[in-house]
Amino acid sequence: MSKNVTSADNQQERLQKLSADYVVALIDGEGYFSVSMFVDKSKNYISRRAKLVFGVKLKEADGEILFRLKETFGWGSIFKRIENRPNLSNCLEYQVRNFDDIKNVIIPFFNRNKLQMKTKQFSFVSFSHLAELFESKIHLTEKGFLKMKNLAQNAHM
Amino acid sequence: MSKNVTSADNQQERLQKLSADYVVALIDGEGYFSVSMFVDKSKNYISRRAKLVFGVKLKEADGEILFRLKETFGWGSIFKRIENRPNLSNCLEYQVRNFDDIKNVIIPFFNRNKLQMKTKQFSFVSFSHLAELFESKIHLTEKGFLKMKNLAQNAHM
Repeated sequence: MSKNVTSADNQQERLQKLSADYVVALIDGEGYFSVSMFVDKSKNYISRRAKLVFGVKLKEADGEILFRLKETFGWGSIFKRIENRPNLSNCLEYQVRNFDDIKNVIIPFFNRNKLQMKTKQFSFVSFSHLAELFESKIHLTEKGFLKMKNLAQNAHM
Repeated sequence: MSKNVTSADNQQERLQKLSADYVVALIDGEGYFSVSMFVDKSKNYISRRAKLVFGVKLKEADGEILFRLKETFGWGSIFKRIENRPNLSNCLEYQVRNFDDIKNVIIPFFNRNKLQMKTKQFSFVSFSHLAELFESKIHLTEKGFLKMKNLAQNAHM
């Protein structure tokens, strides 16, 4: 269960941006670069699709950082995930799902400001590669789709 | 199960220090400030003790960051925790357990470079307060010990 949290929910009008080094460590620890490959069967033809998402999830009490991250990147959305399991707190999640923003903002940022943890840098490099393949539309063919699916499955150390 | 990892285990002679902003975000996400209060009954008298620990735990594959953190602070030890449970990876853990290093290095660092996440800043402020009480030796009396124990239990949001 999730709902989009609008800026009206957030009391602070002008949020302080985060420094590049802070963003790098935040994403090293809490961020993810995800690529899902799926076949949409709701149509009368086979529609092969790929969805790239960059995101960060934090406990709701620390959510202000995500609004500051959104202010820093200038793009992205913040969602609230309601946790039904006992002893776990609700989370806020920042995500960039728009491919143009991923391509023009997120990937260039982490090319300029290299992630310092090996596992996360590996995941980012795989993500960048998959973004290039996605842009060249190879996922529309069966062969290209399977290639991307295989790469996406191995995108984490 | 843990073993101390000596610098000889680490191939890199000169590790690059981390920036203050990187350290702040790393600790915001992955660090902890812990205070344990216990009565040592191994002696013939009641020995009330307090143990303050500042630490960070990461997957072993990202462990280089901890060696860089140790280089940055100039103090602390790195331990390897062997994980026996399936599907979980071994971890490296950086800890500062020496009270003088906590008092003279760690607490001043986070007073100069404020943690940005509310829950972690709350935990740090409680930890600093407990460090002052510890230094004034109030834990040696029953009343002081119980006061610190109560504060330590409420040190996390």
